[in-house]
Amino acid sequence: MMQPFSRYSDRYLDVPRLTCDIGVPLAEQPKIGHNRWHPEIPPAVTVDPGGEVILEAAAYDDYQIHDNGGLDELRRVDLSRMHPLTGPVYVNGARPGDVLVAEVLGVEPLSGIAFSNILPDTPGLLSETFPEGYRSTWYARGAIAESPEVPGVRIPAQPHAGTMGVAPSFELMRLWDKRERPLYADGRAFAPDPQNALLRGLGVEAARVAARTQPPRENGGNMDINTLGPGATVYFPVFVDGALLSLGDHHLSAADGECSFNAMEMDGRSWLRLHVIKDGMARHRITTPIVRPAPLVAQLGAARYLGFTGFCFRGKEQGYQDASFAAQEAVHRAVDYLMGLGYSGEQAYVILSVAPVKIRISCIVTIPNPTVTLYLPIDIFDRDIMPS
Amino acid sequence: MMQPFSRYSDRYLDVPRLTCDIGVPLAEQPKIGHNRWHPEIPPAVTVDPGGEVILEAAAYDDYQIHDNGGLDELRRVDLSRMHPLTGPVYVNGARPGDVLVAEVLGVEPLSGIAFSNILPDTPGLLSETFPEGYRSTWYARGAIAESPEVPGVRIPAQPHAGTMGVAPSFELMRLWDKRERPLYADGRAFAPDPQNALLRGLGVEAARVAARTQPPRENGGNMDINTLGPGATVYFPVFVDGALLSLGDHHLSAADGECSFNAMEMDGRSWLRLHVIKDGMARHRITTPIVRPAPLVAQLGAARYLGFTGFCFRGKEQGYQDASFAAQEAVHRAVDYLMGLGYSGEQAYVILSVAPVKIRISCIVTIPNPTVTLYLPIDIFDRDIMPS
Amino acid sequence: MMQPFSRYSDRYLDVPRLTCDIGVPLAEQPKIGHNRWHPEIPPAVTVDPGGEVILEAAAYDDYQIHDNGGLDELRRVDLSRMHPLTGPVYVNGARPGDVLVAEVLGVEPLSGIAFSNILPDTPGLLSETFPEGYRSTWYARGAIAESPEVPGVRIPAQPHAGTMGVAPSFELMRLWDKRERPLYADGRAFAPDPQNALLRGLGVEAARVAARTQPPRENGGNMDINTLGPGATVYFPVFVDGALLSLGDHHLSAADGECSFNAMEMDGRSWLRLHVIKDGMARHRITTPIVRPAPLVAQLGAARYLGFTGFCFRGKEQGYQDASFAAQEAVHRAVDYLMGLGYSGEQAYVILSVAPVKIRISCIVTIPNPTVTLYLPIDIFDRDIMPS
Amino acid sequence: MMQPFSRYSDRYLDVPRLTCDIGVPLAEQPKIGHNRWHPEIPPAVTVDPGGEVILEAAAYDDYQIHDNGGLDELRRVDLSRMHPLTGPVYVNGARPGDVLVAEVLGVEPLSGIAFSNILPDTPGLLSETFPEGYRSTWYARGAIAESPEVPGVRIPAQPHAGTMGVAPSFELMRLWDKRERPLYADGRAFAPDPQNALLRGLGVEAARVAARTQPPRENGGNMDINTLGPGATVYFPVFVDGALLSLGDHHLSAADGECSFNAMEMDGRSWLRLHVIKDGMARHRITTPIVRPAPLVAQLGAARYLGFTGFCFRGKEQGYQDASFAAQEAVHRAVDYLMGLGYSGEQAYVILSVAPVKIRISCIVTIPNPTVTLYLPIDIFDRDIMPS
Repeated sequence: MMQPFSRYSDRYLDVPRLTCDIGVPLAEQPKIGHNRWHPEIPPAVTVDPGGEVILEAAAYDDYQIHDNGGLDELRRVDLSRMHPLTGPVYVNGARPGDVLVAEVLGVEPLSGIAFSNILPDTPGLLSETFPEGYRSTWYARGAIAESPEVPGVRIPAQPHAGTMGVAPSFELMRLWDKRERPLYADGRAFAPDPQNALLRGLGVEAARVAARTQPPRENGGNMDINTLGPGATVYFPVFVDGALLSLGDHHLSAADGECSFNAMEMDGRSWLRLHVIKDGMARHRITTPIVRPAPLVAQLGAARYLGFTGFCFRGKEQGYQDASFAAQEAVHRAVDYLMGLGYSGEQAYVILSVAPVKIRISCIVTIPNPTVTLYLPIDIFDRDIMPS
Repeated sequence: MMQPFSRYSDRYLDVPRLTCDIGVPLAEQPKIGHNRWHPEIPPAVTVDPGGEVILEAAAYDDYQIHDNGGLDELRRVDLSRMHPLTGPVYVNGARPGDVLVAEVLGVEPLSGIAFSNILPDTPGLLSETFPEGYRSTWYARGAIAESPEVPGVRIPAQPHAGTMGVAPSFELMRLWDKRERPLYADGRAFAPDPQNALLRGLGVEAARVAARTQPPRENGGNMDINTLGPGATVYFPVFVDGALLSLGDHHLSAADGECSFNAMEMDGRSWLRLHVIKDGMARHRITTPIVRPAPLVAQLGAARYLGFTGFCFRGKEQGYQDASFAAQEAVHRAVDYLMGLGYSGEQAYVILSVAPVKIRISCIVTIPNPTVTLYLPIDIFDRDIMPS
Repeated sequence: MMQPFSRYSDRYLDVPRLTCDIGVPLAEQPKIGHNRWHPEIPPAVTVDPGGEVILEAAAYDDYQIHDNGGLDELRRVDLSRMHPLTGPVYVNGARPGDVLVAEVLGVEPLSGIAFSNILPDTPGLLSETFPEGYRSTWYARGAIAESPEVPGVRIPAQPHAGTMGVAPSFELMRLWDKRERPLYADGRAFAPDPQNALLRGLGVEAARVAARTQPPRENGGNMDINTLGPGATVYFPVFVDGALLSLGDHHLSAADGECSFNAMEMDGRSWLRLHVIKDGMARHRITTPIVRPAPLVAQLGAARYLGFTGFCFRGKEQGYQDASFAAQEAVHRAVDYLMGLGYSGEQAYVILSVAPVKIRISCIVTIPNPTVTLYLPIDIFDRDIMPS
Repeated sequence: MMQPFSRYSDRYLDVPRLTCDIGVPLAEQPKIGHNRWHPEIPPAVTVDPGGEVILEAAAYDDYQIHDNGGLDELRRVDLSRMHPLTGPVYVNGARPGDVLVAEVLGVEPLSGIAFSNILPDTPGLLSETFPEGYRSTWYARGAIAESPEVPGVRIPAQPHAGTMGVAPSFELMRLWDKRERPLYADGRAFAPDPQNALLRGLGVEAARVAARTQPPRENGGNMDINTLGPGATVYFPVFVDGALLSLGDHHLSAADGECSFNAMEMDGRSWLRLHVIKDGMARHRITTPIVRPAPLVAQLGAARYLGFTGFCFRGKEQGYQDASFAAQEAVHRAVDYLMGLGYSGEQAYVILSVAPVKIRISCIVTIPNPTVTLYLPIDIFDRDIMPS
């Protein structure tokens, strides 16, 4: 299964690889990837079961954001260029009904920089609170990430691909369109859009129906699960021959919820080993991806979190069993608390988007208020943040 | 601060204690507690800051459920007797605007039994799927819990009080009523109800306005946070003189979400140490409880979970940014998977309610579908449950 | 396998139990135990495979140390009364060559007090440094232990039995004597001693040859493994019919090494479930106990330790591959460091004996100096102890 | 403090770096390092406090071992070429009496291969048991390491530098010689040896007195502490101006004890940030290095270890308080157990040298037998290894 390395050579040489040219938009290097879901995107690489592949991808913005850009640049980000995904990978022998097993062997940043911005007019949880936008740059210093914009905080690097998915069947793609269509009009879902669509040679007809990559769906996609770092395994249902796996949207770190719409975004490289479980969908009753989280995590200690509770009310406003509302409230409580420590609202919001925060639904059956608890790791701060 | 124990005596003797008579409904031992929130419930015990107290309470059912009862009994459970809470504890010196710090020193079962039932017509996530009801009994064998109804599973005991809260002010109680009133009519919230109300001597007028204990609110209450075991700390905003802390609804173990409406319910004993942070609400910007989770947890290993994804769609049905919907779907995926292993739906549902399951909101900004991941610990099973 | 509890009764009633009268030396309650190892000690209780038993035992001192005793009392402790063990338990069907599986279901203190003393003239690692002796009392406050003598420190309670073992065969007992005899003369091992020997009715001839309980040996015994708390499993080789398991020497917490000769010693209760693996010694090549550690541990976080290195030299003195020497040096380095923080030497020594310290042999093949690293948990202190 | 990266460039460009040419012995690239400790080795690079540096080094063998070499090659390894260390780094402002703080930001393999061999005639714990030697090659596949010679095992990569140290003063170097001299004659310590000594230009006189790098000492050096991966911090006492830090002997993974004399050895790269604590030796009473372990560790779960006990006896042979003897016995017990599962002795020995094994001194005061417990992680095996 393993190829022979030599101690006397550089590593990775034997693994098929799709290489991303740093700084070059996907439109100018279309051979490595695509930015829509469609059953017939031509494979960029083929591997056998048990084989490995290395996939490099630009960050979610497709190089629209520059080192020295300002807030204006953020407002001009064209979301129709999201996400530049690398692939698809055709896995020999994978057939609809199988399960594709993707072992994540490694994830690395491509350059030394990541970023977490507040973009106006995106679906961030507190978008109305921070309408101006905000930029923060994060420097990858090995195991840690630091930002001059957010001093006093060190985030342990836990790189992972935010988006990883397989191709839908035509039937599934049509179901998605049918399901989401009522939401297109008022911007609550992204409609198919041939503008800026890149499908590795498929024509405009395909582009008109290809699914946008923003929401996660049955095929996985933009799940943003921050436990999928090196050592994790993902089990995908297979909908088309070859499975057609693609990935991108790497993060250097991400909080549960990714509340600001940005995790710690970066250009990245994922190294996968792929297997096929024949007939796995029926045998294991899998209809959406299931995951085995990475064993390598920053041990910040169970007691070393501070938890903020959120319920689905705000002042006189009352929701009903609304965990999203409750999560938003928990984020508000944590922002408030951090502002009490001297952080600006924007800084607090960024911290809650990039730190290894856990957002857990503690209880969801206590009508009308569920409890959502946001656990903030204490040890990322260079001082004691506990109440005293 | 600490009282002198003697090696030659039983322990705990020096700590003020409210003792629950096992098997006796709260109506027959009204001196130890109450089952509504109200600002003027007379204190059952008084302690100084830094002092300790031991509070015993019956399980949430107030002894309506018996060892040998059947499904009928479950249908007859009168929720107006929920929750028998023990207290309130008056903490000298606590004033509105302060923060009450409750250190959880210990939590123990009162008897050797706990239970997790599926009650018809309660707000469980899958109530419609399991309309018949179901009973499971769990035996506390020291560090583990086992049930003859759910063989092949061992749950590590992680006892905690599901309900812990302070008294609301009159103003806050009125806000609650105003906020929840629109939901009373169709049963989406529990209206105040003098029937079965117990308020330690307060009359029927108080009973008519006293708040029900079902939902968590600004005062904490039925938060069902399963990390509040021995060693945890809870910081409560204080709304009335003395803070008036009460607790009950002990669990031997609970899953995030408590999806079936029952965790592993038990009669229990909590041992607390209480402190006051003067003016803590403003100083730390605390308006709902914040928590520091318990350091003693069952180390089941980060890699030793299997994660099930849920999004806010189901077949052709589409939600919008609905984390509750997504959580429900993740529970469905896990139930399906466990049924594939041979468990009945009811068994699976119970496992997902009592095991140390984590339900995390992985991403909530990917319109229209958030990702909720339900992490099921692998090691509670006596066989390998991974896909293969 | 499980006995029926009732929710309406006290717990544990169905489990066979050997009860220790608090404050009563073993000589006055000989029915529950013994203080020597011998193949023919009459069983105190019999259980079937799969059955459970609760064993209570006095602390290692057999009530020679009193709440208000002074340093004099410590000097008078008669080690020939060590250890008051409860049992033996005869397990039906266990035969020599089998493996006895002891699941630790629960461990609890009998009273609210534990103690950690420095006894003069015992084999503590730094006995010569602290010749005067020292007393510290630890109060069990649920999940934590505190001592007025060692302020500023909170130790998470992690109760376990320091001594747990099975009876030796006659052949094995004779081997022990032969092996240790050369060390008796100068006090480097404890010779058999009928003085104060208690063997549940066996006569003086047995007492003359019965093995002392101080060292751990093939049968387990005084292994002082601090990971054997609730949820742990121990696999013992079986040397006699019925296995004849006994235990005692409970600790509320213990450091690796137990360097002062005292962990946090207490009267305690262990609840076990016992199984037999037929012919397990040969099948699994087990000749000394193997263990599966407890899943419930205080999560203090991997990064939240401060590690002190020790090697086998001291000034001009040089050892050779001596891990004991290196461990002693690591203890010295940690004592020094803690004294720099303001603790007395005795306080530091006690902390390093009772806290959840880990002493790891990092490397043992770097002649002449192995590396031993003592990891001190940072979070037991109420202030920041890191270098700055 | 941080240098500006650009998202549009390769990373690390701004950090001073000493680059190792893969496959080239240190004698042929003397500018990057040395293989003896001496106070006057000329610095290879200089940094300011707060500055960073990247140091690449060949594995401990200095390229004497080749991909396709046989057992003969192992016998010819010349230990006088150990260890090729990269450095020294001169830290501006560091003076004797200060403490040098080395933050480990990152550690990576240079190539895709690592190896763990059994070398005849080296101080491995079981050298006499395996006199023939043995070779195993380990392939670094991102987060995991696999070896065709040891099938069924996956080791999580936890890269770290086995050797990291500062220069001794002349006085300290002389003390070492005096201390170890009695051991030179019979090979229990390595005498200074100008043969193959490389000191970056220092002449033969320096080479005659320069200390060998094999044992760890006051300056750190070959401590082989496997918790010093990315995120760890080491605090070194400073003995000469500039501190003169050097490192090498990288491991892809290492067991506590490194019992076979080889961990998973590799050519590697360490990225450090360096600080100085003025007068730190006296202020913090530091005379040997202290460490803060890495927060990123493979979470294999506390319960997911199998522990093997060792005491200081073997059959009829009896030691006295000898933790090294006990550790050796624990290794023997684990080798026996693994052989019972079908592994060869050599395979078992290698597993116990490279896996994230913990060797803990459980108790050291129970004369004459201390307890050493070797904890073997269960999850590295692809099948269940528990007794049954």
